[in-house]
Amino acid sequence: MSERGFDAVVIGAGSGGLTVAIGLAGFGRRIALVEGDRVGGECTNTGCIPSKRLLHLSRHGGNPDDHLRKVRATRDLIREEELAELAHTPLITLIEGRAVLDAARRVRVGDTVLGARHVIVATGSRAREVEIPGLPPERTLTNASLFELEHAPGHLAILGAGAIGLEMADAFSRMGGRVTIVDVAPRVLPPAPAAASEALARALERRGVTTHLGCRVTGYDADARSLALDDGDAGRVVDDVDAVLVAVGRTPNTDWLGLEDAGVVTTPDGIPVDRWGRTNVRGVWAVGDVTPGSRETHAANALGRRIVQRIALPWLPPLGAPPLIPHAVFTDPEVAWVGLAGDDAGERYRPDALVTISVPLSGTDRGRTDGLAEGFVEITAVRLTGRIVGATVVGPAASELIALITLAMNRRTSLLRLSRQVYAYPTFAGVIGRVADEFARRTLGDLAGETRGYLASRFRGPAGRRP
Amino acid sequence: MSERGFDAVVIGAGSGGLTVAIGLAGFGRRIALVEGDRVGGECTNTGCIPSKRLLHLSRHGGNPDDHLRKVRATRDLIREEELAELAHTPLITLIEGRAVLDAARRVRVGDTVLGARHVIVATGSRAREVEIPGLPPERTLTNASLFELEHAPGHLAILGAGAIGLEMADAFSRMGGRVTIVDVAPRVLPPAPAAASEALARALERRGVTTHLGCRVTGYDADARSLALDDGDAGRVVDDVDAVLVAVGRTPNTDWLGLEDAGVVTTPDGIPVDRWGRTNVRGVWAVGDVTPGSRETHAANALGRRIVQRIALPWLPPLGAPPLIPHAVFTDPEVAWVGLAGDDAGERYRPDALVTISVPLSGTDRGRTDGLAEGFVEITAVRLTGRIVGATVVGPAASELIALITLAMNRRTSLLRLSRQVYAYPTFAGVIGRVADEFARRTLGDLAGETRGYLASRFRGPAGRRP
Repeated sequence: MSERGFDAVVIGAGSGGLTVAIGLAGFGRRIALVEGDRVGGECTNTGCIPSKRLLHLSRHGGNPDDHLRKVRATRDLIREEELAELAHTPLITLIEGRAVLDAARRVRVGDTVLGARHVIVATGSRAREVEIPGLPPERTLTNASLFELEHAPGHLAILGAGAIGLEMADAFSRMGGRVTIVDVAPRVLPPAPAAASEALARALERRGVTTHLGCRVTGYDADARSLALDDGDAGRVVDDVDAVLVAVGRTPNTDWLGLEDAGVVTTPDGIPVDRWGRTNVRGVWAVGDVTPGSRETHAANALGRRIVQRIALPWLPPLGAPPLIPHAVFTDPEVAWVGLAGDDAGERYRPDALVTISVPLSGTDRGRTDGLAEGFVEITAVRLTGRIVGATVVGPAASELIALITLAMNRRTSLLRLSRQVYAYPTFAGVIGRVADEFARRTLGDLAGETRGYLASRFRGPAGRRP
Repeated sequence: MSERGFDAVVIGAGSGGLTVAIGLAGFGRRIALVEGDRVGGECTNTGCIPSKRLLHLSRHGGNPDDHLRKVRATRDLIREEELAELAHTPLITLIEGRAVLDAARRVRVGDTVLGARHVIVATGSRAREVEIPGLPPERTLTNASLFELEHAPGHLAILGAGAIGLEMADAFSRMGGRVTIVDVAPRVLPPAPAAASEALARALERRGVTTHLGCRVTGYDADARSLALDDGDAGRVVDDVDAVLVAVGRTPNTDWLGLEDAGVVTTPDGIPVDRWGRTNVRGVWAVGDVTPGSRETHAANALGRRIVQRIALPWLPPLGAPPLIPHAVFTDPEVAWVGLAGDDAGERYRPDALVTISVPLSGTDRGRTDGLAEGFVEITAVRLTGRIVGATVVGPAASELIALITLAMNRRTSLLRLSRQVYAYPTFAGVIGRVADEFARRTLGDLAGETRGYLASRFRGPAGRRP
């Protein structure tokens, strides 16, 4: 049994772990990076990279099985590059194996004991399992096995209408497959504002995807290859199902880590952390999917950067609110949102303090040249001042446009100011300008009324947060 | 002969004229809007709308002749809507006919004399003509006749490697046609930064478009259907040319307006105006393609808005620099730029005061999932402070991303600040974040050196503008 000392031990070489390891190494810290599976984690191997690669390929025709092969090639290439980057980063020691914490907060990997002042848990998550009576394992898929398929299923049933399920519904239906989505929720993409869910649902339906909402899967008949659904009524049957992709949420990988021995609190949603990634145990941090909250790569990266800042520059005052995290789903149309969009804004602010302006893309020049049936830019702002509190974009490049709105929010840029900006014509970014123009027209057209409304909502009483 | 009084006469119902007419009507002004051809002007009828519609359709397969038919249908629809919008806008009187100014600054349209305190010239431009000996009229196209074609030419030669020529090269080559570009310039898209020109040239070449740069057309042999080029050497011959699209620049429509009688100065580039659209004659304004400078719809709209502000709100102090105008070309890859990009920055600033950072898309995760061979995000900023002075983007959604950089420039947002923003993953907007990260790494990694360099460049002497 050997014992080795490091400045920090990072458990898990996915997006969050790599950000912390490479970031701390950049500040001269000696890092042990422990990985029990594949470097790159979910994002590179079974998440963002393969799914975005497949989405891209699916939109350009061609053979589905070739596409799946190309997806694996791209994934392997990126993983090799990440391994090479690690090999060329001084101060990082990559250790293969499963890490277990002990009561003294040391990390054991097999016979080796790693001692360090800081332990960063970045073990990620896996697809939550569901029991479907009668469904044989070879017909059961998760994001971990989907991209390993030699042949695309003729009819793919997808359990879960979240980001993963919807993106794969989009890709497999575009490649010519039959796709059926099942979810217990009453709408697709429940975390998104309702208007976005509705637009995306219409677009998928138009493309031939069948969706069963408010339904639970009760079993699979292997002879008939049919899936039985409980819809709270007479029940439904989905015929000729070749495979079932289970995408009903994520389970954080906390089980085998010895967190209990180390005194680290865990919940079914993961390891609770503060805004700087600190767990309840001093010197133990957590980042990425193993924590509750946003399970997006960029959220893991953002928290990872904050952990690096606190460990490497502890003398900096721990100021600064957590950064604004935009959300994006890469379906067609893309869906993106940021801040307090839709109903959430009404819960945080007095409704009469806010104004929401929505411009459908179909009524814009670019929407017409591109023949768009769905999509919109919707921005909610404080009356009179025009400060943006949230936005939703559905349409081409939504994931790109949300970055502009995020910047405007970060800089507290008023819609009145966005109205004075010149946008290249004809772009979708210009639709943000149209929303801003409409806000300016309403506000400046009734300046007295808007001022009264703003003041009334600001000083009227205790309910709601002040804008 | 009748005489009618208005607050303003707007000559030309294209993008610039409509912006001024509708804007002033919104402030209660009575407007005569005179149009000698079609409402909507170049943009709606023969410019942005048909070209962007054709670009969109060309990327989705199908029959070229059907696409051209759809282009006309979309154009007609948008023009009808613009006409309906005018009909429903009180205070605007649409007058059909050609307007002529007289020495008393009145506007004559046929037998009618229109008197007004303000005359706004918005007559636009037309394709500059070139004489090609031997080329029959039925094989000569401009943007005015191109979209009227019943049948797409098998081999289209395009004179002029500017935005119009390149977009149409993209569209017609994607629809399966043979395309040859000829320009006297040494590179395609001369107004863009050189790196953008090179990337776009490579992409077009890869798609089978032939480009003859530094060449002049000397004649067309109708029997052989061949175009003769003078390349300053032995000459070249382009075979089997079915039609020639002339897109070598624009001629402002100033001839028949009576501008000389009214004392309005004109140049071959158009009517010179100040930053508020004022000509040399008090009460006569000009906007859009009839003025020198950017011939883009959004530039016309931007100047139109400033004219409305000066006429409707003359008591507002005429402050405010002209707004930053981004530029976009909707080829594949898209090309967009803003501010002092590339070489221009070096002329305005001391070169050692600036740092330019370029990230190729092919090296990014999204570039890999989308299999991109070309494209980059390049930002030039002031050393140490990170204030952006210009940027170039080549790649998908470049025309959208440039809006984010324009906002950052308008708000004087430092690259250091853009580095702290969270971008949805994997997006092209995130590449802006990577450029910002690289700037932050260089700057913070050598803070003393960067500070010395910045101070030296700022105080070293008279040459160059201070950052």
